[in-house]
Amino acid sequence: MTRRRQIYEGKAKILYEGPEPGTLIQYFKDDATAFNAQKKGTIQGKGVINNRISEYVFSRLNHIGVPNHFIRRLNMREQLVRQVEIIPIEVVVRNVAAGSISKRLGIPEGEMLPHTLIEYCYKDDALGDPLVAEEHIACFGWANNEEMQDIAAMAIRVNDFMAGMFAAIDIRLVDFKLEFGRIWDGDFSRVILADEISPDGCRLWDMVSGEKLDKDRFRRDLGGEEEAYQEVARRLGLLQDDNGPSEVLDLSQHRKLRGK
Amino acid sequence: MTRRRQIYEGKAKILYEGPEPGTLIQYFKDDATAFNAQKKGTIQGKGVINNRISEYVFSRLNHIGVPNHFIRRLNMREQLVRQVEIIPIEVVVRNVAAGSISKRLGIPEGEMLPHTLIEYCYKDDALGDPLVAEEHIACFGWANNEEMQDIAAMAIRVNDFMAGMFAAIDIRLVDFKLEFGRIWDGDFSRVILADEISPDGCRLWDMVSGEKLDKDRFRRDLGGEEEAYQEVARRLGLLQDDNGPSEVLDLSQHRKLRGK
Ligand SMILES: Nc1ncnc2c1ncn2[C@@H]1O[C@H](COP(=O)(O)OP(=O)(O)OP(=O)(O)O)[C@@H](O)[C@H]1O
Ligand SMILES: Nc1ncnc2c1ncn2[C@@H]1O[C@H](COP(=O)(O)OP(=O)(O)OP(=O)(O)O)[C@@H](O)[C@H]1O
Ligand SMILES: [Mg+2]
Ligand SMILES: [Mg+2]
Repeated sequence: MTRRRQIYEGKAKILYEGPEPGTLIQYFKDDATAFNAQKKGTIQGKGVINNRISEYVFSRLNHIGVPNHFIRRLNMREQLVRQVEIIPIEVVVRNVAAGSISKRLGIPEGEMLPHTLIEYCYKDDALGDPLVAEEHIACFGWANNEEMQDIAAMAIRVNDFMAGMFAAIDIRLVDFKLEFGRIWDGDFSRVILADEISPDGCRLWDMVSGEKLDKDRFRRDLGGEEEAYQEVARRLGLLQDDNGPSEVLDLSQHRKLRGK
Repeated sequence: MTRRRQIYEGKAKILYEGPEPGTLIQYFKDDATAFNAQKKGTIQGKGVINNRISEYVFSRLNHIGVPNHFIRRLNMREQLVRQVEIIPIEVVVRNVAAGSISKRLGIPEGEMLPHTLIEYCYKDDALGDPLVAEEHIACFGWANNEEMQDIAAMAIRVNDFMAGMFAAIDIRLVDFKLEFGRIWDGDFSRVILADEISPDGCRLWDMVSGEKLDKDRFRRDLGGEEEAYQEVARRLGLLQDDNGPSEVLDLSQHRKLRGK
């Protein structure tokens, strides 16, 4: 592997300069954080799985015309992506109440929302990624109106696609987080989907048992997080391919998830 | 005074059944609360002043065609209003960063916002009146789209009117909170402004000294809250009229406000 310039080390990923201008390499770590990084840990093999799941989802979103940063997977933990100017908004799409919305608005976890809800949070760890309204986004110029319309439209399409994809493998898509970024072409820019889509940023519940198959296992000390991530990958058919022996996902590790 | 049925006792006001169907009497107390009623106290004479200021603002808003619940003032602490079905949203209009937005988004207090910002909070004391977006309001059916458009338009008009009114008496209108409600006519309803407009729900800064002339004096233990409320009323020319001797605002109480 050649020396590469590291651009950014985040909580779950590292960004390196890519082979061509306008590209980046996203390296997926096993590190897990929760509650604005107050809780830290490791989920063995998470990086490998998230790299694979994100590849799977982003490449299929490309096929249905949701433009995104994914170019190709490079190896077990790395993928090549287009560099974007990240819009400092976390876009949260919710189908069922869980997590912060349950706490903030007193809606029992698991209650179906009257309809799909898009929430926006200002990406600022020091402030704890506070919820904002489109009014704030416009007022502070974090994105313009046209960009927000594109973002909302893409978020809804991603939700529909993912709801179908997960339904097919008996998983209920409760909610998920997206990030978007700008790519420039001269003076013009457009917004594409960036970052990752993986059990780190989704709530995924088994349709039958209700079991959580996502980062809530880590957040809430439920145990079995490795197995949960693997289970999602397995159901998506992503555990069969041979990516070299170094980090093969070991199915023998897999045991039935206990409890919720 | 005849026996009247009490409809509701809130933190700052009591609502009684009015003389005619569809009317209420709003009684203004001296009780003050802050931080979701964790802090409680009394501001001597506040109820009298707020009744007077609210009458002043609402009747003038009526003149410029901002429909509202105010009918007429009855006495020092009471006013007759139209009963509405309160929409469970606190509408906050901000011109300058202060209070919760400064804390949430890390904007220094006193910084002019790029433009006027309307925020919505879900009226629920148990939840601490959490900030919500229009998406939440639509999703949970707290108000419909048309109502929200009317509310936003009225809020902007109130802001323009009050900014002018306060500018004329050397007060900077930093932010304020409004409540709206529905009145029904058969199967149809429309939204009008309700509740009160007073230093309880506004941030008012002296243009020259920067001195706070509002409930922040109470929230932040700055002292001089009685004098601050009186000062606003005095500048609006509301301390001269004779409302009977019982609760005359005593100008001799007034002393120069010290510090901020
Ligand atoms: N295509 C891209 N171009 C540029 N930056 C990107 C791209 N995709 C994702 N990013 C950014 O790269 C970082 C990924 O690292 P990681 O997810 O570990 O961040 P993080 O520590 O979780 O911080 P954050 O809270 O911002 O997500 C994020 O800041 C993300 O916004
Ligand atoms: N015209 C009206 N018709 C019906 N209710 C009204 C009207 N105007 C105001 N209200 C309601 O009357 C109450 C006024 O009491 P007060 O301001 O003391 O309430 P509060 O304890 O502060 O609670 P809140 O947090 O709801 O304001 C509020 O609940 C307000 O929403
Ligand atoms: Mg991240
Ligand atoms: Mg009130």
